[in-house]
Amino acid sequence: MPRITSVEVVDVRFPTSLTRDGSDAMNKDGDYSAAYVVLHTDDADLSGHGFTFTIGRGNDLCAAAAAQRAEPLVGRRVDELVTDLGGIYRELQSDTQLRWLGPDKGVVHLALAAVMNAVWDLAARRAGKPLWRLLSEMSPVELVDAADLRYLSDVLTRDEAIALLAAKQAGRADRIAELEASGYPCYTTSAGWLGYSDDKLRRLCEEAVAAGYKHVKLKVGADLADDIRRCGIARDVIGPGGNLMIDANQVWDVPEAIEWVRALAAFDPLWIEEPTSPDDVLGHAAIRAAVAPIGVATGEHGMNRVLFKQLFQAGAIDFCQLDAARLGSVNEILAVYLLAARFGVPVCPHAGGVGLCELVQHLSVFDYVAVSASLENRVTEFVDHLHEHFVDPCIVRDGAYLLPTAAGYSAEMHRRSLAAYTFPTGTYWASRGASESVA
Amino acid sequence: MPRITSVEVVDVRFPTSLTRDGSDAMNKDGDYSAAYVVLHTDDADLSGHGFTFTIGRGNDLCAAAAAQRAEPLVGRRVDELVTDLGGIYRELQSDTQLRWLGPDKGVVHLALAAVMNAVWDLAARRAGKPLWRLLSEMSPVELVDAADLRYLSDVLTRDEAIALLAAKQAGRADRIAELEASGYPCYTTSAGWLGYSDDKLRRLCEEAVAAGYKHVKLKVGADLADDIRRCGIARDVIGPGGNLMIDANQVWDVPEAIEWVRALAAFDPLWIEEPTSPDDVLGHAAIRAAVAPIGVATGEHGMNRVLFKQLFQAGAIDFCQLDAARLGSVNEILAVYLLAARFGVPVCPHAGGVGLCELVQHLSVFDYVAVSASLENRVTEFVDHLHEHFVDPCIVRDGAYLLPTAAGYSAEMHRRSLAAYTFPTGTYWASRGASESVA
Repeated sequence: MPRITSVEVVDVRFPTSLTRDGSDAMNKDGDYSAAYVVLHTDDADLSGHGFTFTIGRGNDLCAAAAAQRAEPLVGRRVDELVTDLGGIYRELQSDTQLRWLGPDKGVVHLALAAVMNAVWDLAARRAGKPLWRLLSEMSPVELVDAADLRYLSDVLTRDEAIALLAAKQAGRADRIAELEASGYPCYTTSAGWLGYSDDKLRRLCEEAVAAGYKHVKLKVGADLADDIRRCGIARDVIGPGGNLMIDANQVWDVPEAIEWVRALAAFDPLWIEEPTSPDDVLGHAAIRAAVAPIGVATGEHGMNRVLFKQLFQAGAIDFCQLDAARLGSVNEILAVYLLAARFGVPVCPHAGGVGLCELVQHLSVFDYVAVSASLENRVTEFVDHLHEHFVDPCIVRDGAYLLPTAAGYSAEMHRRSLAAYTFPTGTYWASRGASESVA
Repeated sequence: MPRITSVEVVDVRFPTSLTRDGSDAMNKDGDYSAAYVVLHTDDADLSGHGFTFTIGRGNDLCAAAAAQRAEPLVGRRVDELVTDLGGIYRELQSDTQLRWLGPDKGVVHLALAAVMNAVWDLAARRAGKPLWRLLSEMSPVELVDAADLRYLSDVLTRDEAIALLAAKQAGRADRIAELEASGYPCYTTSAGWLGYSDDKLRRLCEEAVAAGYKHVKLKVGADLADDIRRCGIARDVIGPGGNLMIDANQVWDVPEAIEWVRALAAFDPLWIEEPTSPDDVLGHAAIRAAVAPIGVATGEHGMNRVLFKQLFQAGAIDFCQLDAARLGSVNEILAVYLLAARFGVPVCPHAGGVGLCELVQHLSVFDYVAVSASLENRVTEFVDHLHEHFVDPCIVRDGAYLLPTAAGYSAEMHRRSLAAYTFPTGTYWASRGASESVA
């Protein structure tokens, strides 16, 4: 009967701003970072790993908050936690004083995600299964017990959620077999960062097509003439049958979004991603109505389930891009998947950053197996960087994630990576001079 | 030409959980706290003071975030800051890495509020005026330049905002004179905390009526039978002509809110406050439609201007209860006042906590003088505790805030209070044992 003996929290930062990987119209100089949590137990072979993702400064705030969030876990029996994953989530989430700092948003919620991601990793390891399989083998009642349905009953009651999952129980094994053969479809963002030259953009688009991708995504929103030229290059490479997505990373007000997207309509984008403030449900609905048939996608900054509920209620989005490290871990993600199924909106999770690809592959597989039972209009983001820091990195072949087979949530980082990139004391940062600012 | 020489950030916590002052159905055991910021200058007689308000754990996170937010201020000339209060706000707000942790919400936004509140206090002191007068003497263009209008242009353009203020320029002096004679009307929450006995509730309601208050607010939402009994006591004391408000502090889902409020309708409440998640724009709209003519009020957890824009667009609220330490200081508060005026919704600021009364008195006076020019359906919260820690405490007489006369934003705390209540090293906490948990 192992117990949690201690919680280790690490502020890990990678100097991605040096190469402008990840650059877009809003986020010009991110140092991709993780507030990384390890739950140690008295069984040396059993630990839980989780994180939230940030882009540099303030990662220390998330790490400090995660340490506070995780305090009640020390001393708990692992088997009690993993048999009541809804209970421990609600206990940590409802801290009566930390709640004031959200509720359910910002640093304290990112920290909850980091800690509960580690708890879910621990649960899957204890069961000896990859997380997607652990979830896919839970009953509808077990899943709904784990889901955070608070504030959702006006559109989805507990009984409706159970019925929705029960209706998809038949065929789970077939769908698992199907994905084990084909993988889960993904698209690449690696080609289209705003900081890249036209030549690099063209070469990366060509490489993406050659690698089997049917979708390519470009960052837009800094300069319209540049965007027209860059969309032309991408469309030229992928041809009329390929899917082009564009991503503005929140730079526009609503009227400007409508005008700008219409100016790019000739390139036939599948979706415009993050056209405006991530909080603006009604703004997204107005943009969607104005730019149809171009779809509207958002969610990587979708702070919690109540925001997603309203995006669905208002008919504001065509694609739900939930984030595995911003929502309150699997507990809240389950709720968003259930809401998406209730409203018939496909979920195409946000990924990239640090380790997000490792997490979302589990979620997408689970969605197909147990919730939506559909691959229509679904494609999960993939960005090809920083995977070398993970013990069980995701594997993508022919434009699809191969199903993870190791036990857990694929969230564990190599000790050598932590030793190098812990901020500011790791070997990399210490040798640069920790106080030196990163351009 | 004074410069900012250093930033002092203090984690101040008061042990209010001991007496259950401030107890409600959601927040049962708050230790009212402030992440307190002092901007020191090389003029010993000039400094800026600001804070954000929390209820205990996590106040250290806000303090740490405030220190990061304030870093760019060190070395700046005071006169450059105070002549471009919009510019410095946008510079601090748009930190490209900290933005990821919101945007515009949670710990990093609370920290921005603390820092920019100190900048506004500094600006008012430099001008030798109370903040309400500094604002009331700014031109429409100056006010709009300071306001954060990003993401709002679908409902309020810059030109519309200027026109709205220009239309109210006439009569400013008369309205100032009027409030200098009468004060700004307020109501008291001190009577109705959930942790108080029926006898204490009755006595406090009687005292409120005797002190000249026309409004009394009760916390509800823990137990319906209790709420019926307590509303009966309050209505009995204030009589049919008094105003009774009820406040559920976010405990209900939407259907439960409607049912519960209807069960209290016989006591003729003026408003139901925070009936559900503060993020649920469409939920508040549904509740409002279902419980009319009882009004719906929310805003103390209203995270930013984009949320308030939508509350107004959706017709979700009858009363806007913005919070002076949660919104990004005067810059964002200006935007919400402009939106409220555009949609004709009265603003009744949230107060209480630590020092919120000291801040909101300035805002309410400014609203009447320069924005709404109306007192109809407007009443500002007042809670009678912790004022003794402030150098320039608010003064309430006959149910109205008297106009502050000292220069600044009334945000400065006594050094002796900081010495006692700094957490965990102040004399109070050190003598209790800093690690001892507060029930």
